Amino acid sequence: MDIAFVLYGQMTALDLVGPYEVLAGHPQVKPHFVAETLGTVRCDNGLAIQADATFEDLPGAELIVVPGSSHWRTALDDDSLIRWLAAAHATATWTTSVCTGSTLLAKAGVLTGRRATSHWVARDTLADDGAIVSSDRVVIDGDVITCAGVSAGIDMALTLAATLWGEPTASAIQLALEYDPQPPFDHGSPEKAAPEIVAAVRAALGQA
Amino acid sequence: MDIAFVLYGQMTALDLVGPYEVLAGHPQVKPHFVAETLGTVRCDNGLAIQADATFEDLPGAELIVVPGSSHWRTALDDDSLIRWLAAAHATATWTTSVCTGSTLLAKAGVLTGRRATSHWVARDTLADDGAIVSSDRVVIDGDVITCAGVSAGIDMALTLAATLWGEPTASAIQLALEYDPQPPFDHGSPEKAAPEIVAAVRAALGQA
Repeated sequence: MDIAFVLYGQMTALDLVGPYEVLAGHPQVKPHFVAETLGTVRCDNGLAIQADATFEDLPGAELIVVPGSSHWRTALDDDSLIRWLAAAHATATWTTSVCTGSTLLAKAGVLTGRRATSHWVARDTLADDGAIVSSDRVVIDGDVITCAGVSAGIDMALTLAATLWGEPTASAIQLALEYDPQPPFDHGSPEKAAPEIVAAVRAALGQA
Repeated sequence: MDIAFVLYGQMTALDLVGPYEVLAGHPQVKPHFVAETLGTVRCDNGLAIQADATFEDLPGAELIVVPGSSHWRTALDDDSLIRWLAAAHATATWTTSVCTGSTLLAKAGVLTGRRATSHWVARDTLADDGAIVSSDRVVIDGDVITCAGVSAGIDMALTLAATLWGEPTASAIQLALEYDPQPPFDHGSPEKAAPEIVAAVRAALGQA
């Protein structure tokens, strides 16, 4: 199975690396790291990841994983990325996104009339672009899976792994990643965090 | 604050990218991606990350983050990496590891007589190298923090963020990453997974 892990400037690394770590180790998977041009892509907190295929080299794949970005409004102006997503989705078996990656799929027309989700700061934009917005952490609508912000990509990919390869395999992946989360605080959603912290994060990310 | 994110061939990307995403976005942080040589480092599932400093360029940093590897026994033979860890720890304020990264710290002499943890498949090796092994997900002993496998780096880094910058800041980071984990299964530790799955993962990773 060919998986296209999509790269673009100022993307959020964990959005991509969560699903990558869940999916790319499977013996049936051939991972591709695809961007507009070859070379390194600089993520929003400074990490540089190498693209080994261009959009032209790899017009599609069975499974597409689209990360989000803390500069997600700027990413919506990336016409070559949006065009590639629209074309690649047309031939993919599964199209998936993490965090604000779903706003890129919406811009590409993939989410029109579909149930979908995103990072909580981007839900209004997702609705404006035609999606039926859910606050669920992982949303499956036909061949499209979207999920909530950043870390939600791990939950999304484990759900997908169980669909692709069965629950025993997904369980083995969860155990290999020792994914038995124990966050030191319980402030990971806007419903659980203090209002002033929600406001601060919304101010930082909502308009970025 | 200078943070050295340590890179080496066949490392596990998520071990590094979890703490990176928690810590590197803070305005006081300057992240460095350090390896034996400049250029790209290929991770164990195919992702290539770029090193922007060599061990010689960056002899130390206030905070060190050491990832593990599914080829962790091979990594223990990387003498230049082990030497750098021993020297860098001597001047660091915090030395941290994720997953089997702690076996590298133990080999470097950092964990002798200290409480520490690792990926569950590597606990015996950690004990053989002089650590007092704990099964806790995050273990703090003085200026050294170790944690369990792969995904545990997110929990470790949030704990550290609260120590460095206070709980409101750590909460804001958790909310920005929407870290409200909802694994589709509850098989993320050897105590929770089926015995045959534990045996299969141990066979795959324990001797790799």
